[in-house]
Amino acid sequence: MSSINEIIPINLPSVHDSRGILTSIESQIDLPFKIQRIFYMHHISLDRGGHAHIDTDQVVIPISGNFMIELYDGKNKAAFKMEDATKGLYIPRMIFIRLYSFSEGAVCLVLANTHYDITRSIRTIEEYNEAIKKQL
Amino acid sequence: MSSINEIIPINLPSVHDSRGILTSIESQIDLPFKIQRIFYMHHISLDRGGHAHIDTDQVVIPISGNFMIELYDGKNKAAFKMEDATKGLYIPRMIFIRLYSFSEGAVCLVLANTHYDITRSIRTIEEYNEAIKKQL
Repeated sequence: MSSINEIIPINLPSVHDSRGILTSIESQIDLPFKIQRIFYMHHISLDRGGHAHIDTDQVVIPISGNFMIELYDGKNKAAFKMEDATKGLYIPRMIFIRLYSFSEGAVCLVLANTHYDITRSIRTIEEYNEAIKKQL
Repeated sequence: MSSINEIIPINLPSVHDSRGILTSIESQIDLPFKIQRIFYMHHISLDRGGHAHIDTDQVVIPISGNFMIELYDGKNKAAFKMEDATKGLYIPRMIFIRLYSFSEGAVCLVLANTHYDITRSIRTIEEYNEAIKKQL
């Protein structure tokens, strides 16, 4: 089981100069895992997320614009405003994630420690609550 | 030596639905290398790039907005307009790269096959031309 207490804001190494900002993330050095997959949501028109991953740890980054993220561990909820492309949020596996209130043109980048396998994701809150109960 | 003929546009696996677009990239599966580092340029106010990498292969993605990329292999030049977040550009090592004409709010994401080492980069066109001559 994971707890929302294990969610960690991460300051991503960034260099600001007259050309703008360069943010650089080394796999396994600046993150607690090897990057096996990256994905990003763009041209967003509706809420995203609404699932949990059985073995996937993630770092979520508001690479453009801003949005809200709500996290639930089966007991407690936490919400974060994601609005700074130099700050990511580490979210361990088995946290139920919902993304909403995207600003116009927002892009959400996610770095993940696993390749994609839909059979290792939980797609509804009911199924999530069942899975949590079994683990208790 | 690398040639601009080795530069390859890549269609990044993307799912379009009513919520928007999800683009997902598996390390070593959708790219010809393991992702060791990602970096992104944002809040851009001036041209970027103006260097080559001795051992770094990259995939450049216009994750938000658009920009131009100019590539030079010591003999030939090519320019691409980067404007679709579902299309990346694979650029092998030892190509001199210049990024310019960024749209307002553009973000350029780069996936790289190496950790960062400034001693393995060539920072001026003069130094690049010298390095190319030595390799011929």
